[in-house]
Amino acid sequence: MVYSGPHETLTPSEQTGAWRHHHVLDVEDFTVPEIELVMRTTTAMKEVLSRPVKKVPALRGKTVVTLFYEASTRTRGSFEMAAKHLSADVVNMTAQASSVTKGESLIDTLNTIEAIGADVIVMRHPLSGAPYCAAPYVKANIINAGDGWHAHPTQALLDLYTIMNRKDRVAGLKVVIVGDIKHSRVAHSNIWCLTKMGANVVVCGPPTLLPDGLETPQRLFPGVRVETNIEKAVKDADVVMELRLQKERMQSGLLPGLREFIAGYQLDNKRLALTKSDSIVMHPGPVNEDIELTAEVLHGERSVVNDQVTNGVAVRMAILYLLAGSKEL
Amino acid sequence: MVYSGPHETLTPSEQTGAWRHHHVLDVEDFTVPEIELVMRTTTAMKEVLSRPVKKVPALRGKTVVTLFYEASTRTRGSFEMAAKHLSADVVNMTAQASSVTKGESLIDTLNTIEAIGADVIVMRHPLSGAPYCAAPYVKANIINAGDGWHAHPTQALLDLYTIMNRKDRVAGLKVVIVGDIKHSRVAHSNIWCLTKMGANVVVCGPPTLLPDGLETPQRLFPGVRVETNIEKAVKDADVVMELRLQKERMQSGLLPGLREFIAGYQLDNKRLALTKSDSIVMHPGPVNEDIELTAEVLHGERSVVNDQVTNGVAVRMAILYLLAGSKEL
Amino acid sequence: MVYSGPHETLTPSEQTGAWRHHHVLDVEDFTVPEIELVMRTTTAMKEVLSRPVKKVPALRGKTVVTLFYEASTRTRGSFEMAAKHLSADVVNMTAQASSVTKGESLIDTLNTIEAIGADVIVMRHPLSGAPYCAAPYVKANIINAGDGWHAHPTQALLDLYTIMNRKDRVAGLKVVIVGDIKHSRVAHSNIWCLTKMGANVVVCGPPTLLPDGLETPQRLFPGVRVETNIEKAVKDADVVMELRLQKERMQSGLLPGLREFIAGYQLDNKRLALTKSDSIVMHPGPVNEDIELTAEVLHGERSVVNDQVTNGVAVRMAILYLLAGSKEL
Repeated sequence: MVYSGPHETLTPSEQTGAWRHHHVLDVEDFTVPEIELVMRTTTAMKEVLSRPVKKVPALRGKTVVTLFYEASTRTRGSFEMAAKHLSADVVNMTAQASSVTKGESLIDTLNTIEAIGADVIVMRHPLSGAPYCAAPYVKANIINAGDGWHAHPTQALLDLYTIMNRKDRVAGLKVVIVGDIKHSRVAHSNIWCLTKMGANVVVCGPPTLLPDGLETPQRLFPGVRVETNIEKAVKDADVVMELRLQKERMQSGLLPGLREFIAGYQLDNKRLALTKSDSIVMHPGPVNEDIELTAEVLHGERSVVNDQVTNGVAVRMAILYLLAGSKEL
Repeated sequence: MVYSGPHETLTPSEQTGAWRHHHVLDVEDFTVPEIELVMRTTTAMKEVLSRPVKKVPALRGKTVVTLFYEASTRTRGSFEMAAKHLSADVVNMTAQASSVTKGESLIDTLNTIEAIGADVIVMRHPLSGAPYCAAPYVKANIINAGDGWHAHPTQALLDLYTIMNRKDRVAGLKVVIVGDIKHSRVAHSNIWCLTKMGANVVVCGPPTLLPDGLETPQRLFPGVRVETNIEKAVKDADVVMELRLQKERMQSGLLPGLREFIAGYQLDNKRLALTKSDSIVMHPGPVNEDIELTAEVLHGERSVVNDQVTNGVAVRMAILYLLAGSKEL
Repeated sequence: MVYSGPHETLTPSEQTGAWRHHHVLDVEDFTVPEIELVMRTTTAMKEVLSRPVKKVPALRGKTVVTLFYEASTRTRGSFEMAAKHLSADVVNMTAQASSVTKGESLIDTLNTIEAIGADVIVMRHPLSGAPYCAAPYVKANIINAGDGWHAHPTQALLDLYTIMNRKDRVAGLKVVIVGDIKHSRVAHSNIWCLTKMGANVVVCGPPTLLPDGLETPQRLFPGVRVETNIEKAVKDADVVMELRLQKERMQSGLLPGLREFIAGYQLDNKRLALTKSDSIVMHPGPVNEDIELTAEVLHGERSVVNDQVTNGVAVRMAILYLLAGSKEL
């Protein structure tokens, strides 16, 4: 069901926004008041980040382990910085350097990391749903930092925060997500989060890169409109979010080539002029310059791409704090 | 010579248990009182780990460098956490990312790491004896975190702690070590440590995976009994320790296949029933589920595999503290 | 222009030595008083390193990111330790594990790292000049930890410190740099720094490994003398600095073989005897033992190779402190 605005269909206890999650696997699991609690906590964390000494003792003596089965500069680094600002100890583990290459099951690996003393495990895994399989067997808090095509909840929360920070609201805004919707965990988590918060979400991309059944009666993402023509899609948009194009899509034959993608789906100044005059441009990064966004648009005044990165640290501090923080800030 | 119990054949000064080691290369170098000192210190560290803020300043301002020439999730992570709980700074170096790929000698690499400011160097090296070659030239404390087939002293100490924690003693217990004894540094260090502490050690595995000369007059491991039949071996055992099977053994022709190994040496519930009713099951991890141990046994109530991991952090804290800690805890 | 001694051709404001750099890209950009300020600050940092608790709060709450596009044990580890001694948080990023493998531009990568919250970015890049291209677009402080063949400023500063520490001065000393001058950022930064501080620099190596135009009227390095015969070059030298020989030079045909290099350019005891009786032997490491230096010379009493490594940490602490430190030590 689609929330046309916050709070509408919640039980009273859900409306209190008390934090009741042990893991953060997707925003789909969150109520609107919970999302709002994350937003408020993020604002508190941004205040911490504005101090000369950007450090609070909220997670002192706690250990955050990052377990990445896929390479990532920004997400791993962002979590590591967030944890260190909260005075946690951080231990980084990657798939190449870990016993996962030795045939141990994911649950056993997580149990071992927990037995070593992890209070929070931040995991990225190439298989959709992997953290859901493992979570019931793990006492440490798990944060899903991306699982296959499925979900990337902290990305959706930082995108929401960035929109609310610029627009003061999200309900009723037209948000257009452009590109490879089908294989994008960023798109999926954003669609759940934004529709729940009352945004009007339009997805736009080549038909081969759109999820099946988007417009069937039992559709996967209710409340989402599909528009394959980018000019129509971005018309009067408040937010345009371009997704990263993976080179694998060309190799797999789902996309004829870069030239066609650029012609059909790149955001340039001409297309940007069709949006509202105060619209913002987003991208989860890393941007393929002059592919998803022209250099002018990426570095132009409507771009909030660097804000997204900065807000990401604050959102991750908020999530770590809500999961594992001692309540003194 | 085999100690049938602690303290028997020690000189008075050895019996005081005063710490006199600058490096930890193998438990073979330790006296019984020294091992007991490590055990007592580990218990103190477990108390630290039970606190809400798991951090003491014993190594504040000291730097621990981990230098791993082989990948390892649990050992490297365990040492890193141990050091951080003691407030040390940790710098991780791996062979791929280090100048060891540039043809520098091991001694020069260690001298450089020491000159950079390492107080303790935790090293894992694929060559048996490598830390012994290097140690005389290094002023920093070296901890051997595994050298080839030779030794893995902190693993033996954490296994001993786990046994003593569950059984209140080790002298007189029947401990059966099953699997690839020949190529296992875990087995070698455990055999030295357990026989020194008075356990009755039985090793069990395919003849091709047993060390040569186990039962010759000038045998490598005195006090150890060999039994290639697992049912006979585990009969009335207090402890069964299965070793990890390396896939390389099949490739090298030392083992016909997994099926044969499982038939002959896997610990399942039927074989577990032959042991004492209060026996415990150990494995250094990572476990190949349903190969060395069935899933039921691994996750069953006799399994202390996760205890081993947790005790590993405490044992490593104890070793770091005894080597380099300021004496305030 | 060559400074025959410090202070000579500086404006009064330059002579105050007030720190005015936002980035450290090469020592070429430094005035003599600035270099002297780094030297004095390094001495203060060596005092910190001599304390039982080697930690000061000067960078507490600041984050140093190391971004290495080339592997390096000692430089990355040295910066990491320097930052930790100053209580900074350190986040390590390598090219393999980062989004640089995903086609993002260097400037975008640096802007992202800055947006994540880096106060200082220590970068090593295989392309000469890369940090110069990126620096104008980055608000965080950039320290060049080596760019292609071009520069390695902290290496030159630690070499200068090591010489001044042993010799009490540098002006007027004969410093001979031996080996592959052409492809060595260490040589280039040292030549700039040492000639600026008034040393008489002689470079010595096979003609194929010397930069072009060293002795033309518009020469690249004024004030530097070329001598291809090592016996003549090291005669009465105060300092001999051998450079690391890269195996790639043989493969590229610039050098016939190791045997020829050793015959012509290795520093052994016989050649060392031609230098002044109180001369010192330097090498940026890692040393190919018995190639650039014989084992006797490397481990002999004239060698200051380990001092260089130790001073490197103090110099990097000084640079980090001057760029980003709160002024309480």
